[in-house]
Amino acid sequence: MQDVKAILFDTFGTVVDWRGSIARMGAALARKKGIEGVDWDAFARAWRAGYVPGMARVRSGERPWTSVDTIHRERLDEILPDVGLGDALSPAEKDDINRFWHRLDPWPDALPGLIALKPDYLLAPLSNGSLTLLSTMAKRAGLPWDCIFSSNIFKAYKPDAAVYRGAVALLELEPHKVMMAAAHNDDLAAARSHGMRTAYINRPYEFGVDQRADVEATQDWDIVTDSITGLADALRS
Amino acid sequence: MQDVKAILFDTFGTVVDWRGSIARMGAALARKKGIEGVDWDAFARAWRAGYVPGMARVRSGERPWTSVDTIHRERLDEILPDVGLGDALSPAEKDDINRFWHRLDPWPDALPGLIALKPDYLLAPLSNGSLTLLSTMAKRAGLPWDCIFSSNIFKAYKPDAAVYRGAVALLELEPHKVMMAAAHNDDLAAARSHGMRTAYINRPYEFGVDQRADVEATQDWDIVTDSITGLADALRS
Repeated sequence: MQDVKAILFDTFGTVVDWRGSIARMGAALARKKGIEGVDWDAFARAWRAGYVPGMARVRSGERPWTSVDTIHRERLDEILPDVGLGDALSPAEKDDINRFWHRLDPWPDALPGLIALKPDYLLAPLSNGSLTLLSTMAKRAGLPWDCIFSSNIFKAYKPDAAVYRGAVALLELEPHKVMMAAAHNDDLAAARSHGMRTAYINRPYEFGVDQRADVEATQDWDIVTDSITGLADALRS
Repeated sequence: MQDVKAILFDTFGTVVDWRGSIARMGAALARKKGIEGVDWDAFARAWRAGYVPGMARVRSGERPWTSVDTIHRERLDEILPDVGLGDALSPAEKDDINRFWHRLDPWPDALPGLIALKPDYLLAPLSNGSLTLLSTMAKRAGLPWDCIFSSNIFKAYKPDAAVYRGAVALLELEPHKVMMAAAHNDDLAAARSHGMRTAYINRPYEFGVDQRADVEATQDWDIVTDSITGLADALRS
């Protein structure tokens, strides 16, 4: 691991808690608007359920390049009627709800972990988020990225090869000097297939207490840990 | 100016003092190696003189995409014999000298100015430097960029349209919401031609006391100032 110069992080689920954050922001909005009876945790999961299928249509070529913000917004329009909010919100309010994804909170270990890693490694997200989403999120949360790799730089979504290879090429590093850190085994499998180092950060409650996938490492990743502070400790030892 | 959401900075000369930094690092190396008689300020200017012609060959298509690090290294090999150092340095030492450009110091106003702007604007370099050069420089100097726009993201050099338009597109902002800040009138002219706002930061000694070009604003740029702290003040007023 001594050759590693840069660590690239999956963001949604690995660095930030999208489910808890969306649920909290939804509940706050509901209180403000006098909306009752919505399970915001379930709402967050239902919203997220449109993410992979939405990207899949772009990845397959069925649809031209489409921002994750658009994919989020389309899914939002699908699910609002299911919770009785199809007509309760103005377009501007829906736009603001869509930007919940720009204001996600980090897991408690993320900021101290990244700060511990920062002196020794170039740190960047390698995320399916847009540049504006990722930079807004980082600015608000204080995530100390050295640069940002967003899906719209590559016009591709993970796990497409163009994303991993594109980031490694922009860094002008050999692939084994770049580590992918993610809470998702498929993300790491793709990174490994391109010669990158891998760190699995276990987030078994990303999707809730009944999460089935990604509750443990399914391959012998270079590092297996349960937090970003744990990653920093592992790289120091 | 109230619409401006993002400010993009030219880097060499605008944010960092390449001439003074290269001269200081050269003098320090000379002392360590027992090298005497080199005018390191003149050396820095001679090195820089290869920059625009080197990029011009790429911009014209005469040469395929070539990193600014390679352009710097080729120019270094040209000028070392002129100061009697053609054979005095190992390849590894020359590589390290080439990375002087990754370790340039900011002008004294740059860090306080960027910190003052940071809460209200997305801040990024829009530079002909490489991603590694710009992120290494920022990490060392503490430049608080929200993201980085490097020439190798666009595979183009300023003032090519692809750089300005590419950054505005990645930000998903209308061009008039993005401001270019630079010490060079031609950079601002290009940015303005693409609908961006412009801030001229006068650096009349960037090239030395006998600097001829870019000693004053040559158009009615949206803001004309002499420091990045001055830019922050102008945007607040």
